[in-house]
Amino acid sequence: MEKIIAKAKVLIEALPYIRSFWGKTVVIKYGGAAMTDDKLKLEVMQDIVLMKYVGMKPVVVHGGGPEITRAMQQMGKKVEFVDGRRVTDRETMEITEMVLVGKLNQEIVATLNRQGGCAVGLSGKDGGLLTARKLDTPGVDLGFVGEIFEVHPEVINTLDREKFIPVIAPVGVDLEGNTYNNNADDVAAAMAVALGADKLVLMTDVPGIMINPEDPATLLSTLKIRDIADMINRGVITGGMQPKVQACERALNGGVKKTHIIDGRISHALLLEIYTDQGIGTEIVVG
Amino acid sequence: MEKIIAKAKVLIEALPYIRSFWGKTVVIKYGGAAMTDDKLKLEVMQDIVLMKYVGMKPVVVHGGGPEITRAMQQMGKKVEFVDGRRVTDRETMEITEMVLVGKLNQEIVATLNRQGGCAVGLSGKDGGLLTARKLDTPGVDLGFVGEIFEVHPEVINTLDREKFIPVIAPVGVDLEGNTYNNNADDVAAAMAVALGADKLVLMTDVPGIMINPEDPATLLSTLKIRDIADMINRGVITGGMQPKVQACERALNGGVKKTHIIDGRISHALLLEIYTDQGIGTEIVVG
Amino acid sequence: MEKIIAKAKVLIEALPYIRSFWGKTVVIKYGGAAMTDDKLKLEVMQDIVLMKYVGMKPVVVHGGGPEITRAMQQMGKKVEFVDGRRVTDRETMEITEMVLVGKLNQEIVATLNRQGGCAVGLSGKDGGLLTARKLDTPGVDLGFVGEIFEVHPEVINTLDREKFIPVIAPVGVDLEGNTYNNNADDVAAAMAVALGADKLVLMTDVPGIMINPEDPATLLSTLKIRDIADMINRGVITGGMQPKVQACERALNGGVKKTHIIDGRISHALLLEIYTDQGIGTEIVVG
Amino acid sequence: MEKIIAKAKVLIEALPYIRSFWGKTVVIKYGGAAMTDDKLKLEVMQDIVLMKYVGMKPVVVHGGGPEITRAMQQMGKKVEFVDGRRVTDRETMEITEMVLVGKLNQEIVATLNRQGGCAVGLSGKDGGLLTARKLDTPGVDLGFVGEIFEVHPEVINTLDREKFIPVIAPVGVDLEGNTYNNNADDVAAAMAVALGADKLVLMTDVPGIMINPEDPATLLSTLKIRDIADMINRGVITGGMQPKVQACERALNGGVKKTHIIDGRISHALLLEIYTDQGIGTEIVVG
Amino acid sequence: MEKIIAKAKVLIEALPYIRSFWGKTVVIKYGGAAMTDDKLKLEVMQDIVLMKYVGMKPVVVHGGGPEITRAMQQMGKKVEFVDGRRVTDRETMEITEMVLVGKLNQEIVATLNRQGGCAVGLSGKDGGLLTARKLDTPGVDLGFVGEIFEVHPEVINTLDREKFIPVIAPVGVDLEGNTYNNNADDVAAAMAVALGADKLVLMTDVPGIMINPEDPATLLSTLKIRDIADMINRGVITGGMQPKVQACERALNGGVKKTHIIDGRISHALLLEIYTDQGIGTEIVVG
Amino acid sequence: MEKIIAKAKVLIEALPYIRSFWGKTVVIKYGGAAMTDDKLKLEVMQDIVLMKYVGMKPVVVHGGGPEITRAMQQMGKKVEFVDGRRVTDRETMEITEMVLVGKLNQEIVATLNRQGGCAVGLSGKDGGLLTARKLDTPGVDLGFVGEIFEVHPEVINTLDREKFIPVIAPVGVDLEGNTYNNNADDVAAAMAVALGADKLVLMTDVPGIMINPEDPATLLSTLKIRDIADMINRGVITGGMQPKVQACERALNGGVKKTHIIDGRISHALLLEIYTDQGIGTEIVVG
Repeated sequence: MEKIIAKAKVLIEALPYIRSFWGKTVVIKYGGAAMTDDKLKLEVMQDIVLMKYVGMKPVVVHGGGPEITRAMQQMGKKVEFVDGRRVTDRETMEITEMVLVGKLNQEIVATLNRQGGCAVGLSGKDGGLLTARKLDTPGVDLGFVGEIFEVHPEVINTLDREKFIPVIAPVGVDLEGNTYNNNADDVAAAMAVALGADKLVLMTDVPGIMINPEDPATLLSTLKIRDIADMINRGVITGGMQPKVQACERALNGGVKKTHIIDGRISHALLLEIYTDQGIGTEIVVG
Repeated sequence: MEKIIAKAKVLIEALPYIRSFWGKTVVIKYGGAAMTDDKLKLEVMQDIVLMKYVGMKPVVVHGGGPEITRAMQQMGKKVEFVDGRRVTDRETMEITEMVLVGKLNQEIVATLNRQGGCAVGLSGKDGGLLTARKLDTPGVDLGFVGEIFEVHPEVINTLDREKFIPVIAPVGVDLEGNTYNNNADDVAAAMAVALGADKLVLMTDVPGIMINPEDPATLLSTLKIRDIADMINRGVITGGMQPKVQACERALNGGVKKTHIIDGRISHALLLEIYTDQGIGTEIVVG
Repeated sequence: MEKIIAKAKVLIEALPYIRSFWGKTVVIKYGGAAMTDDKLKLEVMQDIVLMKYVGMKPVVVHGGGPEITRAMQQMGKKVEFVDGRRVTDRETMEITEMVLVGKLNQEIVATLNRQGGCAVGLSGKDGGLLTARKLDTPGVDLGFVGEIFEVHPEVINTLDREKFIPVIAPVGVDLEGNTYNNNADDVAAAMAVALGADKLVLMTDVPGIMINPEDPATLLSTLKIRDIADMINRGVITGGMQPKVQACERALNGGVKKTHIIDGRISHALLLEIYTDQGIGTEIVVG
Repeated sequence: MEKIIAKAKVLIEALPYIRSFWGKTVVIKYGGAAMTDDKLKLEVMQDIVLMKYVGMKPVVVHGGGPEITRAMQQMGKKVEFVDGRRVTDRETMEITEMVLVGKLNQEIVATLNRQGGCAVGLSGKDGGLLTARKLDTPGVDLGFVGEIFEVHPEVINTLDREKFIPVIAPVGVDLEGNTYNNNADDVAAAMAVALGADKLVLMTDVPGIMINPEDPATLLSTLKIRDIADMINRGVITGGMQPKVQACERALNGGVKKTHIIDGRISHALLLEIYTDQGIGTEIVVG
Repeated sequence: MEKIIAKAKVLIEALPYIRSFWGKTVVIKYGGAAMTDDKLKLEVMQDIVLMKYVGMKPVVVHGGGPEITRAMQQMGKKVEFVDGRRVTDRETMEITEMVLVGKLNQEIVATLNRQGGCAVGLSGKDGGLLTARKLDTPGVDLGFVGEIFEVHPEVINTLDREKFIPVIAPVGVDLEGNTYNNNADDVAAAMAVALGADKLVLMTDVPGIMINPEDPATLLSTLKIRDIADMINRGVITGGMQPKVQACERALNGGVKKTHIIDGRISHALLLEIYTDQGIGTEIVVG
Repeated sequence: MEKIIAKAKVLIEALPYIRSFWGKTVVIKYGGAAMTDDKLKLEVMQDIVLMKYVGMKPVVVHGGGPEITRAMQQMGKKVEFVDGRRVTDRETMEITEMVLVGKLNQEIVATLNRQGGCAVGLSGKDGGLLTARKLDTPGVDLGFVGEIFEVHPEVINTLDREKFIPVIAPVGVDLEGNTYNNNADDVAAAMAVALGADKLVLMTDVPGIMINPEDPATLLSTLKIRDIADMINRGVITGGMQPKVQACERALNGGVKKTHIIDGRISHALLLEIYTDQGIGTEIVVG
């Protein structure tokens, strides 16, 4: 009895957070270890279903890198990257779409539903959600690597008003009907702007932004927009973190209230971010 | 970090219960120790606010015996009981109403609101909620002691559709405009029927129905309607417990799905009843 | 037959007034003789119910001075006033709340309902309606005498959209949870502003504002805001009338279209104000 | 002042009637003297606008006999009646429609609107409201004299939900597109059934049904359906009254709660019928 | 089979037009040959019903000149025109109203309904739709010839939201209750402005605006507002075309997106205007 | 001009069909040649978009046999069929899902959208749409070949109320979370029942049901349920046609009004079925 009373108290401790997030839209970029580790995967899905039940409107955007590579290899297709971006010919794009939309997206949907959610998987083609265009990469042709040009969020709004949790694969079409693979962080940021979201959360495999990447104690808990350029110049924000921080900046400039880069390797990272005062990871805010 | 992850896990454990109670109406008779002990009081209010935020529709009905007696004594009024019911002349009724509606009800409302709820206090007069009639007590005139004759739950439904938590004082008027004090258990049962509630929970100061009242190990976790008469005959259900069990029976016959008699002296008793598999106290069900 | 035709004609004469007030919100400060005289009381309640049925949205705010004093005396509590305001220690506040919320408010609700209305009694605590703060009275501590700091009118709007007539007791809580007694005229004015009311009517025990208080023939039927200061300087608006006029001024500055100070001692004063061209009492308007 | 207080009291006297008719649909067959006498006309229109403002849903059906005859004579057309029904060739039907729809209906609409109503004139063609068929009159061809075959009340319901008062000319079309003139009493009865009306009121030029038509003292205030046949056999209900009584009977059999045959020559006859206990004229009820 | 496949292809060709006009409001001034020629009349009605079924909101305004003259002559009334406008004494106005509202309007309604539409006929009196005032014609008194002073489009909006097609006769009342005949082109333009229409289409008996009226090859397919004055000065826009062009100009200034003067003598002129790229007639646009 | 008028007339000819199908739900099983031939594919998509724009609610269910085989071969997977059903091990199911959901479904969605539609692709996992169970095939284990156990059509209803066209891949999950491939005809029939559809259309590669499959002149235009058993016994309905006819029968027994087996090799077969009196193919009806 003592033990279950203690549990009830934990629920009650969550109440102030539940209240303050009630009715809020949170766009979650789901990826990294949280997507490949079965235990973490389950925990994230539980977190999202809980968020929906306690009154929030979570919207999930997922990536899928490793699975695409695996499927290509299985089909005997050569895998090639330039500056961290996959060279994507038409056949690669086809495999990419099948893996993202027909495998990963459906797995996420099914897992959410088994946890009691009512998820609906979407690609950027569904309801005309994402219009992409070819990413301009001077000096190299990456093929069907796109960037988001327009978001038509009506289908998300329609689903959000009801019990459904939208799960989005970052595939888009251009005005000529070509399919593009888009960076999932960028899609999440664009979606957050289009939905007028209150929060954008990017799940990564690092603790957040650290002054010294070797030393977790140097984690920045808050970063202001105006300090980003300096941080990049000083080499604090480098490599793969740079486009993530820039996605956050675009989201903030587009009206999103708060953005977060969190460590998806931590159990229930999403709940921790939302239901604790200090949050986890690095929060990037206007200022 | 370990500790807050453990807390997040507790939230996740609650998810199946949150799901299964989402959108359900639960009428709670609030009284006894949970109303006089400050710590318990706060815990009950937190439980109710949490229930509202995670999608349930809690409706609170409260009693108020000891406070009425205290106010009467303070005003130099003699207090008299017959068979556990207060003899209620017009002046007593006036004091009763002031204490129930103007003091206890408002305290509950204020406490719920301080915990982040949005409670609205009502008496049976508000919106014509409760029509009472004089309780027929052969051989003795108890004055303005009433029983519920009709419930017009429109005002509750109007508030329930929005963010409001209704808190009801068990005062009613008869068709001639006389005010009556009604048994709060009975009011809760009648309200549960009128609202088509899924659950009726009566908070008491005992662990539930026990074969041997001295021995908590003899607590009945479930009691079927058809066994009630026998239990009364055998002297298991006696005294003040009898009308409570009968209120549950009336609620069940009126279509309420489940009724519970729980021990309000346990911390977060309401959450425990709803968010654990075994529940607490005695559940009385159709059968 | 002649007589009932004459009555039908009276109804028809009211048509232009009914039309022009259809759908309008009118906040009524109910108090004075209209609250203590049984015949007047009934007439006011009839007026309000009629107003609701012919399409208006009446909102009632009531005071309660004499009853509070009576209850305090009954409980052997000393009654003390400074500058017309009651010194209100914690115990006085408790008695005040019981009388206002648990007695007077409920009597008004019950009378409205017996006349065919569907009233719902509220205090400033219900639905977080009124946030108060301690009234700043330099040089003297009046205790729990408050002023309105914020109005959250959602509960009124929810009830107003349906058949319910809200009846408000002027009790409020501050951000720390302390209960305050507030001036009912001020509450009515603040409520009128928060609701975007079309009309604020203050019921008093004088014919209105008179140049010579001894001579009803000097009644001002209209007073413009810009003339108020001059009227106060010239000693025309004095004593208890001054805060009433200032409440009207605040309401007008807050966007209320018209305010009225009327004589509640006249039978059906409310209907007369609304359903005659000339109105009664003094109308205070922007200008 | 005394006088206007007396008027306010009359409004208050009407309150119980206003309450009991709130939200009720009343179909009014408007015709006879009330349509030709300017003073009566104005009074009826005032009554109807008042009914709308105090929460009822009045629906007006009008006839137009004398005006049609006048227009035909003006156009040099011969007027011929068989058994009280006008022989209606195609040209007569065209004149009839112009007079009913283009003159009388529009006059009623304009008068209602000048009294503050918001009336919308309709013929049975509008929104497919009335499907007619040729009236079967053995042995004689009356031409385009019709009877109601089907009612499609959607347009009335659409207007009724808003502030509009529907005014219906009894013209209908058959399935081949031929236009028919229909008896306005019959149209009113069919409309009352189709709308699920609470009341059908037929305005006539007699006090009601009288045992001795010469003696108003023999007026029947109530007539039960089961007595109609006997009354016709005994010659109490004769001539033009017979089809009116039968229209009421059909309405009652179709679910209308009450029907009334009233004297339209009395000032404000409609209000008197509705807002007095005894009513006026003869009420025909189920029984 | 070949033939019906060819027909299906025609439907598919219309798809882009159907899409781009979905949900759009189009006000159509119906008159001229399209109103007198039976085949054209039927085709226009079919066009309008189709427009409604494929998602547009057509609103029809009709004139009625020749029929009014015919009816006046039939009644032995002298017909007199000044500058193309009919001198309209009270009796003429009465005949005009009967013909417009009781004959022509009802014929249009009945024809639309026979084609599967659900039309509702309205005059400017219905729902207070059109407030007119006497047209100021210096030096000559034309009697009840009016101009539009105010439009209250609520009744149109109420009908438009449902399946109903509003058909409007250009009759209006002034504030004193006098009935006026108004120019139907002007009514259509005022209606288009009041409804925030996307398109105003005036049906005429000429191909559109032609540089040389003798030579259809000189038809202007587009005319910009800024060129109108010059066109009038140069004598290109003359006579009856001038007020039509000015009605279009007023509509455009009032926010209507596009206006069209089309040749109603062409079969299915409305569909051709809307469902072909080039359109027909002359389009007058902002610029 | 002549030519475009002729086209307008074709639109008008479609009007009666548009009217009678307005608001109706039609479930279309899309497959066969219409899915592999590019020209036919485009025509079907145009038909479906048109159906949506003219007020119908089309719901598309697609199959995908040949593409799955191709993908399996590409991945070096052995393809095996038993009684026309693919043996589906876990890896085959994964490929099947990727092809159905990530390729074919998205191609259909993209094509519909390019034709101006607003399609949303769904699998049976999305929104918990389809619960499957392992198909019971005595004597042989087909692996993850399922049959539909439950349909939860809420997500379809949510999308249908708006502008969206749902496109469904016949993948479902069982209660343990295993993914199954289901027969698309069966899914379409179950969906039609769950949606209360008016029509179920199965697109095939034969003209319909023919007495002599060699002779198109023996095509049955209508087949009644009661004749199905006899037709099967007589060998008229054989092979792959048998389960299709049985799917129709189940749909009809479940309340669907009409079912059709049509020849998808005909251009615009869907429009022809719906917008011609005779329809095409074989209609199977209750009787």
